[in-house]
Amino acid sequence: MWFSSDRQRIQRDIEVLAQFTSSPGQGVTRFSFTAEDRAAREYIKQQMAASHLQIREDAAGNVFGRRGGRRSDAPVVMIGSHFDSVKNGGAFDGPAGVVAGLEIARILDENQFITDYPFEFVAMIEEEGGRFGAGLFGSRAMAGKVFPTELQNLRDQDGVSVAEAMRGFGLEPANITSAIRPADQLKAFFELHIEQGPILENAKTAVGLVETVVGIDQWEIVVQGRPDHAGTTPMDMRADALVAAADIVQDLYRLGKQAGAGTVATVGKLQVWPGAGNIVPGTVVFSVDIRSAAAAKIQHISEALRAAVYDLPERYPGVITRIKPVLSVKPTALSETVLQIFEEEARACGITTQRMVSGAGHDAMIMAELTEVGLIFVPSRGGRSHCPEEWTDYEQLQKGIDLLLSAILRMAEFRKPD
Amino acid sequence: MWFSSDRQRIQRDIEVLAQFTSSPGQGVTRFSFTAEDRAAREYIKQQMAASHLQIREDAAGNVFGRRGGRRSDAPVVMIGSHFDSVKNGGAFDGPAGVVAGLEIARILDENQFITDYPFEFVAMIEEEGGRFGAGLFGSRAMAGKVFPTELQNLRDQDGVSVAEAMRGFGLEPANITSAIRPADQLKAFFELHIEQGPILENAKTAVGLVETVVGIDQWEIVVQGRPDHAGTTPMDMRADALVAAADIVQDLYRLGKQAGAGTVATVGKLQVWPGAGNIVPGTVVFSVDIRSAAAAKIQHISEALRAAVYDLPERYPGVITRIKPVLSVKPTALSETVLQIFEEEARACGITTQRMVSGAGHDAMIMAELTEVGLIFVPSRGGRSHCPEEWTDYEQLQKGIDLLLSAILRMAEFRKPD
Repeated sequence: MWFSSDRQRIQRDIEVLAQFTSSPGQGVTRFSFTAEDRAAREYIKQQMAASHLQIREDAAGNVFGRRGGRRSDAPVVMIGSHFDSVKNGGAFDGPAGVVAGLEIARILDENQFITDYPFEFVAMIEEEGGRFGAGLFGSRAMAGKVFPTELQNLRDQDGVSVAEAMRGFGLEPANITSAIRPADQLKAFFELHIEQGPILENAKTAVGLVETVVGIDQWEIVVQGRPDHAGTTPMDMRADALVAAADIVQDLYRLGKQAGAGTVATVGKLQVWPGAGNIVPGTVVFSVDIRSAAAAKIQHISEALRAAVYDLPERYPGVITRIKPVLSVKPTALSETVLQIFEEEARACGITTQRMVSGAGHDAMIMAELTEVGLIFVPSRGGRSHCPEEWTDYEQLQKGIDLLLSAILRMAEFRKPD
Repeated sequence: MWFSSDRQRIQRDIEVLAQFTSSPGQGVTRFSFTAEDRAAREYIKQQMAASHLQIREDAAGNVFGRRGGRRSDAPVVMIGSHFDSVKNGGAFDGPAGVVAGLEIARILDENQFITDYPFEFVAMIEEEGGRFGAGLFGSRAMAGKVFPTELQNLRDQDGVSVAEAMRGFGLEPANITSAIRPADQLKAFFELHIEQGPILENAKTAVGLVETVVGIDQWEIVVQGRPDHAGTTPMDMRADALVAAADIVQDLYRLGKQAGAGTVATVGKLQVWPGAGNIVPGTVVFSVDIRSAAAAKIQHISEALRAAVYDLPERYPGVITRIKPVLSVKPTALSETVLQIFEEEARACGITTQRMVSGAGHDAMIMAELTEVGLIFVPSRGGRSHCPEEWTDYEQLQKGIDLLLSAILRMAEFRKPD
């Protein structure tokens, strides 16, 4: 490799951004349109300015730093991720990709690289939905998928609406559509993100190349039995909502395992009423979350789940069930062209990669509606994320950034000096 | 039958007592040492006085009404139940047995029945433990099983200790041991109670004769897995605490069913952490309650449960478990002599009975440590109790009272006038 990112600059960016938290000592909490947002934003803009980027903020609050190309009106190669966080999250989820952009901009600037296509480095906001509950806000604004109703209706826990928070931050919500980026203005979108899972670490692979962002089906299931006295009600006269629900929990686990190929199925939330040791459970409500790169596998599990829920009263007389759809998102396939560029460049510079599925949603998924998208993962220690322990070694992050730099140079048609 | 209880007087007693509630319109809430306790107590004493009983309250707050026998210093035949309630409970759990005593006292008085042994009609307090969390208080006081520490340490939700509440009610907690009734002062104890289960209603039997009050083993089980991201963590890399716990919930249900003979096993309380739809459950804590008339069956299920909990990590790698004993009470067999008296008298007056197990604890269970005990059940509509819908038809209650009257007359050696 004839260029390399600087580990110390990357570490400094990550560490400085992590200080802009409303929960010092308890991980990073950086919600959108807050003082911490402002401080992080100022740091990002300052770094962009130092790399001679042309800085702009859109009506949604995304930050852009532009570097021109030989073809001044050509569509841009955009690079970035988000800089908001969940409550008590870590220093890497989001910032890793923003810092990748800052470091790449520095390298381009220092080496006076000239490309045909221009670049835009972006730091997006409110991807996590930590403050208002509806995530991917920055990328949705670019894709024209923020609805005026959500600006008024979604509120943080203090009752402040998105619109009110924006105005308080100096943004005009009525202008939100000005953030839209027409597809023909974009040549490609690249995002580097932490994996948030254990696959790369376990496989000892440096970088994951995302082929597909999973689709998601979410359901809420209610099992209604009868809250009888646990001492005086014989086993064969009970309608125990928890025993019946446990059957579905086990069923779903088997369905997820059998589906294979990165398909997952989870009951993450389950509540029991009345919830006393000496009362047979009368009602159980639980969540179901099914994800796969293959829409057919999601459909298969959802149908098997629905059948199991409908059949439950036959196996547990006296129990009745209800199943409510919560969310259904189709899988998003990312650009094969970009995947092959990543693979060729990785081979050339000796970086190990593997193709994989993203089990979580990312801004890249939204951007794929507009342009060709490349999404790469760097390893997460222990697969942990959304917690203060979230960690990626700086050497690992560096490898991801180096590969990203190689790929975006190709995409922007950089011609190596002779 | 040459005497019979009066349906209307019974109904009036039940209805008047139900008015002494701190939750009007939302069932009966009558905690001990409160204004509602005082009002119910005054009504009970007034009814006792009308039947020419000699009234006394002991240091624990139990109310007694005595009717002498030919043998003035002979041990007494005691009849009664409790008059406190759970929060938002019903009108019958407890009062049914107190009212049985009041009605029997009226019949004895009206008919000038003379027996060899004296009677004491008792209305006991704090059986439910609704206010302070430790039940069977009135009967334990008679059996000498109230410990001074609990008077100081147990507090209601406003932080008032038992001792403070007693003092505020005009009782001196230091005198609690004066409530003890030596075994030789008692000839027998009789209690009528609602079944709180569906067995009598389903079998269309008028009265249940309790052979045994079940023993109880209670456990708390902790299953500790790993709270991973539900999208990014493959099925085979998870340690899902809920899937593992669901296995035990199902196991325990099977164990309870297989044991048969009125043995029951219940998981009534189960909590999941962190409890979000998109996070694999990291920790599950749940209760186990096992009851049976046969100590061996309880032991068998508890051992099988312990084995299943210990083996869980083998079937669910990455999961660790902990099992903590909460309570272990042996089954209590009641008097065979009394059971036979009930059966003979029931046959004589055409009341259908069946022997059964009490799945709930009752004051009778404590009194069985002191004397011969008879405990009879009247049907509960739908098996419901501890709720405003709790119900027993007055005709059903009447049959129980008539049988109880026959039995206590025999026990007290009443000689029918020629």
